[in-house]
Amino acid sequence: MSSIIGQTLKISIFGQSHAAGIGVVIDGFPAGITVDMEKLGQFLARRAPGGDRFSTPRTEEDRPEFLSGIVDGVTCGAPICAVIRNEDTRSVDYRELKDIPRPAHADFTAQMRYGGYQDVRGGGHFSGRLTAPLCIAGGLCMQLLEQKGIAVGAHIYSIGSLQDTPFDPVTVSEKDFPRTRFAVIDPVISEKMQELISDVRTQGDSIGGIVECAVVGMPGGIGDPMFDGIENRLAAILFGIPAVKGLEFGSGFAAARMRGSENNDPFCIQDGAICTQTNHHGGILGGISSGMPILFRVAFKPTPTIALPQQSVSLSKMEEVELKARGRHDPCVVPRATVCVEAAAAIAVCDMIL
Amino acid sequence: MSSIIGQTLKISIFGQSHAAGIGVVIDGFPAGITVDMEKLGQFLARRAPGGDRFSTPRTEEDRPEFLSGIVDGVTCGAPICAVIRNEDTRSVDYRELKDIPRPAHADFTAQMRYGGYQDVRGGGHFSGRLTAPLCIAGGLCMQLLEQKGIAVGAHIYSIGSLQDTPFDPVTVSEKDFPRTRFAVIDPVISEKMQELISDVRTQGDSIGGIVECAVVGMPGGIGDPMFDGIENRLAAILFGIPAVKGLEFGSGFAAARMRGSENNDPFCIQDGAICTQTNHHGGILGGISSGMPILFRVAFKPTPTIALPQQSVSLSKMEEVELKARGRHDPCVVPRATVCVEAAAAIAVCDMIL
Amino acid sequence: MSSIIGQTLKISIFGQSHAAGIGVVIDGFPAGITVDMEKLGQFLARRAPGGDRFSTPRTEEDRPEFLSGIVDGVTCGAPICAVIRNEDTRSVDYRELKDIPRPAHADFTAQMRYGGYQDVRGGGHFSGRLTAPLCIAGGLCMQLLEQKGIAVGAHIYSIGSLQDTPFDPVTVSEKDFPRTRFAVIDPVISEKMQELISDVRTQGDSIGGIVECAVVGMPGGIGDPMFDGIENRLAAILFGIPAVKGLEFGSGFAAARMRGSENNDPFCIQDGAICTQTNHHGGILGGISSGMPILFRVAFKPTPTIALPQQSVSLSKMEEVELKARGRHDPCVVPRATVCVEAAAAIAVCDMIL
Amino acid sequence: MSSIIGQTLKISIFGQSHAAGIGVVIDGFPAGITVDMEKLGQFLARRAPGGDRFSTPRTEEDRPEFLSGIVDGVTCGAPICAVIRNEDTRSVDYRELKDIPRPAHADFTAQMRYGGYQDVRGGGHFSGRLTAPLCIAGGLCMQLLEQKGIAVGAHIYSIGSLQDTPFDPVTVSEKDFPRTRFAVIDPVISEKMQELISDVRTQGDSIGGIVECAVVGMPGGIGDPMFDGIENRLAAILFGIPAVKGLEFGSGFAAARMRGSENNDPFCIQDGAICTQTNHHGGILGGISSGMPILFRVAFKPTPTIALPQQSVSLSKMEEVELKARGRHDPCVVPRATVCVEAAAAIAVCDMIL
Repeated sequence: MSSIIGQTLKISIFGQSHAAGIGVVIDGFPAGITVDMEKLGQFLARRAPGGDRFSTPRTEEDRPEFLSGIVDGVTCGAPICAVIRNEDTRSVDYRELKDIPRPAHADFTAQMRYGGYQDVRGGGHFSGRLTAPLCIAGGLCMQLLEQKGIAVGAHIYSIGSLQDTPFDPVTVSEKDFPRTRFAVIDPVISEKMQELISDVRTQGDSIGGIVECAVVGMPGGIGDPMFDGIENRLAAILFGIPAVKGLEFGSGFAAARMRGSENNDPFCIQDGAICTQTNHHGGILGGISSGMPILFRVAFKPTPTIALPQQSVSLSKMEEVELKARGRHDPCVVPRATVCVEAAAAIAVCDMIL
Repeated sequence: MSSIIGQTLKISIFGQSHAAGIGVVIDGFPAGITVDMEKLGQFLARRAPGGDRFSTPRTEEDRPEFLSGIVDGVTCGAPICAVIRNEDTRSVDYRELKDIPRPAHADFTAQMRYGGYQDVRGGGHFSGRLTAPLCIAGGLCMQLLEQKGIAVGAHIYSIGSLQDTPFDPVTVSEKDFPRTRFAVIDPVISEKMQELISDVRTQGDSIGGIVECAVVGMPGGIGDPMFDGIENRLAAILFGIPAVKGLEFGSGFAAARMRGSENNDPFCIQDGAICTQTNHHGGILGGISSGMPILFRVAFKPTPTIALPQQSVSLSKMEEVELKARGRHDPCVVPRATVCVEAAAAIAVCDMIL
Repeated sequence: MSSIIGQTLKISIFGQSHAAGIGVVIDGFPAGITVDMEKLGQFLARRAPGGDRFSTPRTEEDRPEFLSGIVDGVTCGAPICAVIRNEDTRSVDYRELKDIPRPAHADFTAQMRYGGYQDVRGGGHFSGRLTAPLCIAGGLCMQLLEQKGIAVGAHIYSIGSLQDTPFDPVTVSEKDFPRTRFAVIDPVISEKMQELISDVRTQGDSIGGIVECAVVGMPGGIGDPMFDGIENRLAAILFGIPAVKGLEFGSGFAAARMRGSENNDPFCIQDGAICTQTNHHGGILGGISSGMPILFRVAFKPTPTIALPQQSVSLSKMEEVELKARGRHDPCVVPRATVCVEAAAAIAVCDMIL
Repeated sequence: MSSIIGQTLKISIFGQSHAAGIGVVIDGFPAGITVDMEKLGQFLARRAPGGDRFSTPRTEEDRPEFLSGIVDGVTCGAPICAVIRNEDTRSVDYRELKDIPRPAHADFTAQMRYGGYQDVRGGGHFSGRLTAPLCIAGGLCMQLLEQKGIAVGAHIYSIGSLQDTPFDPVTVSEKDFPRTRFAVIDPVISEKMQELISDVRTQGDSIGGIVECAVVGMPGGIGDPMFDGIENRLAAILFGIPAVKGLEFGSGFAAARMRGSENNDPFCIQDGAICTQTNHHGGILGGISSGMPILFRVAFKPTPTIALPQQSVSLSKMEEVELKARGRHDPCVVPRATVCVEAAAAIAVCDMIL
């Protein structure tokens, strides 16, 4: 599989942080969908770096060129290929990385996997920059889902120990989705989170956080038992976002501390339709959608690359050395990752309903 | 995909709780592996129900018959098919389930997905009983991995709020794996957990918990970035175990509250080899194994079926009704699920190294 | 992949000729389909060996037991598993095969592939007997297709140089399908073919032939360009039938000798619908169905195992030796293969339309 | 699947004839392979159109730009993306095609499949031009195979009824591969074929032909039984080349007229190794390579687009009309398709040995 995923709708992501370009092929996207390029641009802008307290100073236009699959603004059924040229690259920053791997980064494992041939510049194919093509695919999928009355939205659930107001598991709807670059619901918490990230950056450190995501409007009866359930398919793509270390659906890890009588969601009838009074199950039972909002949370570790000195090893000399990383990095990936989570979820949901 | 998973090694699981049989086809298992049937039997016995405080009173021999793929105790390269006959079935218990879905169970979503044709007896294909064939495949994979110096082991990390001693992330080795039916490391906690489950059962309720699993001896450099990373592939199979609602690798959700300077694992040299001083990364960086133990935790919700009365709906009458479930069920799936987690992990790891 | 194939509908075939059993798992078959077991039995009987001039004297009931996926005669959406027990096995016939591979048989390549661990008894997993489970899956698919107005039928196009009346490419319909054990349209040719096979058997030799197959009632617009076209998907499964060495669609190899002005099928309007006057394209253009009958021919080589002495080598002594094969074999696989071609086509078409 | 194929090595092809570009993503290509760009250019030049009697007058540089996956001329393990810009496009030629489909072309089926949204300009994604990215991938795979001592080569076996000297099935080796733009072994036949094509073009017609391909140096024991055999995997990709209507391995359709005693290849020992005296099996037995040359032939229909008037229908008016196609087209695709067959085979073989 590697950088290709999907069954009916497949995406194939390519590129390295400092290669000529990055991009995505979207194979199996239906014909006849009018693409709103401005809306797509707005979606991508939420992920794009630069210009604020919480992201890397690297600035990129990140405007995709569509090489194929779209004719006069409408999809034609052929694979869609979008390319983003890499421009603001400073490869000189990364030269010593081939010898001294950054702790918690893929430098070391890539060295073992690719025998030293991997592209280390800017993290190569492991760079968070590769989430831009993921978001292009996701943005298109969101437009397709919208036509079917399905919306995907996420917010920053927590940064460090600061926590946003969670989505209401039962009533969450599209209007609750912040859709902003720093997607926090509670404005007071938002300000505190941005301060925290700013402080962490000043300290040369980084910090982790959690993204909460909801899929609303999903009809019941979608999915399959065992290995083709909604959880499996969301998981298979979500763990493809760099820095993701955890994933839970509905009450998730909290359910592990609960009794059945607490966690079970009573069925009820509302407006002539069957639903559940609570939504600990996160909209999924037996791998299949129940018609309630699909809810999950994704845990992101702190950005590995920090300015503080760390212990590493020199691969050539096989001795322990102190590493002081250079390069430009987000002190916290969570704000931009929120968009990536939306994108990944939209792709997986699209693939399931097609 | 549904009930088939894998790339080089594929497993195809079939059966329903009260069908003539359940089983698994294992396609791509290498030729020439001597199968230790006694050892496999011991592994399956850890998952089998019956006879103790913490599992369903349903008793089944669960002795698989191997129809193909093994000649004189040695694999021949052809697909291995193992079948378990269903014997101790009491289908009468489940008659009303077609009309009144159990809260938190797949009854309702299966109804929507299969239009009323699903096999409701004993949960059908959604039954926890279907983990028996998963464990057959997993048990064979563990024997194959053993030959390559890789061991997979799990323990009950928590039941409700009772927590076992965790694995040491850096030093965990095969000798730390309990390999018992109630796989808890700390004997005092083990006794308390069993009491808790016994109490919960008496109350007609159920309870959730967490399984912690380690893969030791895994060589570095296995895996791929993006969608074919170790996390993705473990997730894709682990969420196939019924009742799983969360998954985290290494420090997981805790990493979301940490700083990079805390969470990053410094590289060091030990006995001439590069390793990390701590193991917050759970043995995986960029989807690729680092050579450190692979560590993850799986959250299980409480068993949906409980004896306490619950609110549900009658699908035929479209009215809310009280449900009092009958049938025999585990008050807590975690003890038996521990074996399933080992099995699923062994299958995924086997598939990755073949 | 190995012995698993399919995208939405997947089949997983297992077993060896002399193992305890052979069978198939059918994953993704829709719920709610009533299975006509008698009809399935009739379909399988056409493939079953024994009792006539043209097949192996090995007799097997070949009555499948359905372990799962069917409840009270109706599919329930869970994977369907069918098993056939092997009974009339005479393993003693095959002992020397491990040392002296039969020319044109998989004995030699299996030895290289599986390092001597392969099951040589009766050809193991390479045996033509493994087409029985293929036909079980195919027979079920044919019943599903029937509900959608699609029929798949084949006949013996040729044995050696004796040729049957071909299907009319434009008008072929379900009533033209012989559906007999020796499926030849022209009764005079049929008699001659049976005599020829009988003669060949007496001579201790074997003979090849061609099967022609048609899919009628297939709606237009099914399929995809490039690697997911109808030809690709039929080919991927048809070459899984033992002894298949060639495949052509429409005018096939004959088209290679034609001009565009001859081979191009003019469009016309008939009864208000667009069709083609001729059908050199075999119902497929650009990988996608045109609405015309899908037509293809499959070339089978002569059965490798013959009674005449042949030159082979002793693997243990590394010297050339004369081989005189024993065991029971069809002098011509084509009559029984006709059913297998129908089955394989039905599976592929089912997978495409689901 | 659509335009993605492969298991370990996957290729994803995108683009339409008159889109901004066409290209390919190659996912799973090993790291550390030095790419000889000049050699790749020579390979692509054999497929490129223009400048001779037998191909379309459309001229394109067809020089791929590599956006990713190659650093300083060496593969880095990340997906390789190559793009070719479309420049010499004359879209005006194709306007009426949306209404009046060309006989034997995908115009009509694409209309049904994509509901009128398909890109008709130059055949869109169905254009033979899309074989350029296939050849880029194939050219890289050939360089990889070369390092392993495996060579893939094809020649024009026949045009109409003119036939080249076939490869010797037993002794064929790399030096027998013509590797020229008009890849015919016998120079006299080559001249006659070129004349024939030239005549056919003058007549406003087109003509079909057959490509014969050999894979030499393939080690024995590669492949799998049933659906993952070498024939299956070659077939799955070869039928992705436009205009392919037939495929046969070894003696192929001729085997259908033979007896076992003729078609079976006697084993013998030569230079201490086991081989076969003849090679009717085309190097494949039971889906697995025997170590003998792999041999197959691919039948191409005549180019659908011809200048002669043909009967078609107007989709808007639902009436029969005469079509006189414009645009630039090869009168015979076989010369250029020879390179595509080599490319497709190289990709499939690479995928199997990785």
